[in-house]
Amino acid sequence: MDNSKFCGVVPPVIIPLREDRSLDKEAFEFSINRMIDAGVNGLFFLGSSGEVAFLTDEERMQVLHEAIRIVDGRVPVMVGVIDIETMRVIDQVKRVSELPIDALVATAPFYALGGPCENERHFRTIRKYTDLPLFAYDLPVSVHTKLDPEMLLRLGTEGIIQGVKDSSADDVTFRWLVLKNRDAGHPMQLLSGHEVVVDGALLGGADGSVPGLANVDPYGYCKQWEAAQRGDWEEVARIQDHLARLMLMTKRVKSTVGFGAGVGAFKTALWQMGVFNTNQMREPVQALVDADVAAIHEVLRINGMIEENAPIRTDWA
Amino acid sequence: MDNSKFCGVVPPVIIPLREDRSLDKEAFEFSINRMIDAGVNGLFFLGSSGEVAFLTDEERMQVLHEAIRIVDGRVPVMVGVIDIETMRVIDQVKRVSELPIDALVATAPFYALGGPCENERHFRTIRKYTDLPLFAYDLPVSVHTKLDPEMLLRLGTEGIIQGVKDSSADDVTFRWLVLKNRDAGHPMQLLSGHEVVVDGALLGGADGSVPGLANVDPYGYCKQWEAAQRGDWEEVARIQDHLARLMLMTKRVKSTVGFGAGVGAFKTALWQMGVFNTNQMREPVQALVDADVAAIHEVLRINGMIEENAPIRTDWA
Amino acid sequence: MDNSKFCGVVPPVIIPLREDRSLDKEAFEFSINRMIDAGVNGLFFLGSSGEVAFLTDEERMQVLHEAIRIVDGRVPVMVGVIDIETMRVIDQVKRVSELPIDALVATAPFYALGGPCENERHFRTIRKYTDLPLFAYDLPVSVHTKLDPEMLLRLGTEGIIQGVKDSSADDVTFRWLVLKNRDAGHPMQLLSGHEVVVDGALLGGADGSVPGLANVDPYGYCKQWEAAQRGDWEEVARIQDHLARLMLMTKRVKSTVGFGAGVGAFKTALWQMGVFNTNQMREPVQALVDADVAAIHEVLRINGMIEENAPIRTDWA
Amino acid sequence: MDNSKFCGVVPPVIIPLREDRSLDKEAFEFSINRMIDAGVNGLFFLGSSGEVAFLTDEERMQVLHEAIRIVDGRVPVMVGVIDIETMRVIDQVKRVSELPIDALVATAPFYALGGPCENERHFRTIRKYTDLPLFAYDLPVSVHTKLDPEMLLRLGTEGIIQGVKDSSADDVTFRWLVLKNRDAGHPMQLLSGHEVVVDGALLGGADGSVPGLANVDPYGYCKQWEAAQRGDWEEVARIQDHLARLMLMTKRVKSTVGFGAGVGAFKTALWQMGVFNTNQMREPVQALVDADVAAIHEVLRINGMIEENAPIRTDWA
Repeated sequence: MDNSKFCGVVPPVIIPLREDRSLDKEAFEFSINRMIDAGVNGLFFLGSSGEVAFLTDEERMQVLHEAIRIVDGRVPVMVGVIDIETMRVIDQVKRVSELPIDALVATAPFYALGGPCENERHFRTIRKYTDLPLFAYDLPVSVHTKLDPEMLLRLGTEGIIQGVKDSSADDVTFRWLVLKNRDAGHPMQLLSGHEVVVDGALLGGADGSVPGLANVDPYGYCKQWEAAQRGDWEEVARIQDHLARLMLMTKRVKSTVGFGAGVGAFKTALWQMGVFNTNQMREPVQALVDADVAAIHEVLRINGMIEENAPIRTDWA
Repeated sequence: MDNSKFCGVVPPVIIPLREDRSLDKEAFEFSINRMIDAGVNGLFFLGSSGEVAFLTDEERMQVLHEAIRIVDGRVPVMVGVIDIETMRVIDQVKRVSELPIDALVATAPFYALGGPCENERHFRTIRKYTDLPLFAYDLPVSVHTKLDPEMLLRLGTEGIIQGVKDSSADDVTFRWLVLKNRDAGHPMQLLSGHEVVVDGALLGGADGSVPGLANVDPYGYCKQWEAAQRGDWEEVARIQDHLARLMLMTKRVKSTVGFGAGVGAFKTALWQMGVFNTNQMREPVQALVDADVAAIHEVLRINGMIEENAPIRTDWA
Repeated sequence: MDNSKFCGVVPPVIIPLREDRSLDKEAFEFSINRMIDAGVNGLFFLGSSGEVAFLTDEERMQVLHEAIRIVDGRVPVMVGVIDIETMRVIDQVKRVSELPIDALVATAPFYALGGPCENERHFRTIRKYTDLPLFAYDLPVSVHTKLDPEMLLRLGTEGIIQGVKDSSADDVTFRWLVLKNRDAGHPMQLLSGHEVVVDGALLGGADGSVPGLANVDPYGYCKQWEAAQRGDWEEVARIQDHLARLMLMTKRVKSTVGFGAGVGAFKTALWQMGVFNTNQMREPVQALVDADVAAIHEVLRINGMIEENAPIRTDWA
Repeated sequence: MDNSKFCGVVPPVIIPLREDRSLDKEAFEFSINRMIDAGVNGLFFLGSSGEVAFLTDEERMQVLHEAIRIVDGRVPVMVGVIDIETMRVIDQVKRVSELPIDALVATAPFYALGGPCENERHFRTIRKYTDLPLFAYDLPVSVHTKLDPEMLLRLGTEGIIQGVKDSSADDVTFRWLVLKNRDAGHPMQLLSGHEVVVDGALLGGADGSVPGLANVDPYGYCKQWEAAQRGDWEEVARIQDHLARLMLMTKRVKSTVGFGAGVGAFKTALWQMGVFNTNQMREPVQALVDADVAAIHEVLRINGMIEENAPIRTDWA
């Protein structure tokens, strides 16, 4: 299974919603095209940033149908099969596998407490139900399990998984995984999910990144990837500084915490920049308003993402 | 909405499986009848102990259909609508509400990080889609959010929720909730999920308990409830000592941790006692074997749950 | 080593300070006498509530000298030897052992990360340096290690420790420890540190409690202990309800969290009740003021600890 | 206060012990000279790696006296003033300030639960008692508080602290701190404590690092710092790969966890390399033996730190 195409910048795609919380297909198409035009190397749908947790099974399929129609083969499509435990994940695998997609992304099981044995058997069981490349999604903040790097290496070497999307914030273990993966002949593509320190990840040997912020500034991440490819590390770091400053928008939100502040800020930025028509969120999360919107607008303005005189947008188109 | 019937002993029903991991309907019927005959005051299906996380939507409905057929109105039926975020939970609500059930049980949302606002809106949104009594399931070990007691009281007073199943291991906050609920006119039924210290919970004013261990020894918990009703607290504590010793079976498991050790031990006990035909578990959890089975058998024997000379059962019927 | 005298109500003594943060000897004497007069079975000095973490070694000795002078043998004196790692704890042991005290109380080591082996060797090493009864202080909220009950039982059976002060909030494990300690011939005195659910702890077989709140209402806890001794469990629970309501003062504090809210509330209550002359705290914690003081005053008034018309005290005597 | 000299490679000095757990002065001198000869930019004594938690006050002073005698002004000397709460830290400040040292390093208070207000007041209070440069040591793994970057910036800008030693494993927040510190005119020296990803930290703008592993391989870290100074980032990363592989020695330890595995592995490596005469640890931690020693020896051999044919050393000189 060739997995080398899963590299570079692979944004987890954020979904635009209408006021009634349904998918805004026009904005979705505009945003996807904008990222592909900027040069992203792939797109990851139905991930955490794509509000997969908040969508019913039917709505997930609607998002995916639209995504595939819009992408139309221009870049590889990775798809999250996020559900609670193994057989529910496999239900998701069966569902999405009817469509022409390029890879699956699965987390460790969550809700019921397990241990390392359960985690390993989980991925091995999923493998029995699919021939697609499978990425392990290391996301302890959501599933409350850190994937053991020895297990990942074993699964990678045996062809059970073809890569890892690392959002564990454990850069030390990630570095060790990069080294051991290299020693093993590079069976896995290792993608970092930490948009604020992609420069260090690339210098340390990551194969690419999955930055939520790339929905807002795909050009920055794509230029950064190009600079890394040609070894211009000062430029890589310089662009990272810009992206890190832009990411501070998520710290300016005062009305809520967690998902509503993070993806909520990105949606608000995309709305202010005219990419999205609203900053609507899925229940039970509420769209950011007032001071939070103003603060995000300011971050965009200071960092050159909107014009100096651009007014704060208050309407939902 | 009268919620007073949700009291006393309400076991979260553990499901027996055949070797192929499908529902063992005969054993299910035998076990349910055994608990009802012992005098339980209600039954809770599709809870954590009922492997709800491991069942596909189709399998959940199969379990529930059988459960309702078997119970046949003899005791109230509470049903877990466990899913990741609000709209997925509501999908579960719609599905189970087609059947004649008595109450719904929902956790806080999980996976995506939220805050208090999201938790409160979650329960309020669920309420819009059902007229059934709704219990908030406080289970931080699985959903990584502790439900705020002030929020619970507010939701209870306004009729959004009709009770709480507390599995938070925070007995201090539970005591305060009992007192405040009493001051507010007792709008909620407060059930403790801590099978090892039910005596203290009842002495402190809990309306009942939801003990997983009651699948193994329903008689013990029912006698304890009766003793509490007549104020014989020494007897309540004496029975609790027996139940606490029995619960030690979960600490004797060495091959795994978490769910596989907890519910795995209960299933193994039920198998050894002849109530279940196997101790099979759902993927990716494996059935306990060898030394773990022997240790659980010993706990049962020492505590009088099986005969002194009973051999260790090794067959799956 | 006879340890049976360490039972019943053993308040961890809170220290009154003058404005300059030095010990207020007069108020200290008044408060200690008040607790002894109420009938406490022992007193625990230099514990967490006694601000041991905030006192220099010299100041600790001053507190202890005063304490011993005031108590004058009327009740057993337990003394905390709280320090970071083993040899520093032993330094504290040497220092306090020059005075006529009845028992030592030591936590697991903290700051440096250890494991079960280190915890066990820690207590065994301390034992080599003292002949006094030694209590293990299980306080994971401060030392971030939960003491393993099997280890405690082993240490108790071998005579390394003579008891446990359990402030772990893990009532399930405490219940199991009570049962196993009983089976082993009761080598340890097991004291609960959870002032809000002492009723359940006593019903379940605890030998006593170490309630910080007993500084505020020693009469309540002493009456509760007497009721438990004569088996009047309804009265035990009724008194607990009162004490639980009183404890809510710690939840009314809005200006800070943790120690400043907990012991800060107790000091404020003692000041409002005229037992202390100030509610001063040790650096870097600040005394509660304004709305927090008013809220605590209200809790005291509602629960009959001060007169209905008592004004809020604003002066530091 | 000029703090620019606190930059580059500043190893936290690990202390060699004799069998009786007392300081091995000869080995101490040898190891310090080895690091200075390699070109380190400073040395940090009485830090976590220096077993500060395990030393009595008297022993701390002995270590520091020897350290100052040996260093003899060749590089700046930073000194940890690690104690539980503010006034105890200030006691340590007074003690070490009698000696000619260059900077103090203090953590947030620990043991008693505090909040942001207490943390900030802690550093402000320490400042009143010293004129030396003061570094905030961000070490949540030990003190269970993450220092708020806004607070650090405020303290830095006001001259309360002169730098940060960041061992928080939160590279995202560290990156933001670097940017904001730069915007504020660089009032603080920001040193990373993550020896496995120093390359990314330096590329991102860190002023230096405090790597425990530099006791084992000071040459590696010094060459890396030089490469970074001249902008040869591929070389910086190449050296980091070597150091990351060397650091894997800490993951090879199977007999214990935490400090005993981390600093225990470093001491074992230094013993095997002939820098230390033993790998003895302070109570209650035990020296590594047998398979753990062999595994560390193998890591050293594979990574060129000892000769290919070097036997495993088993004697304590």
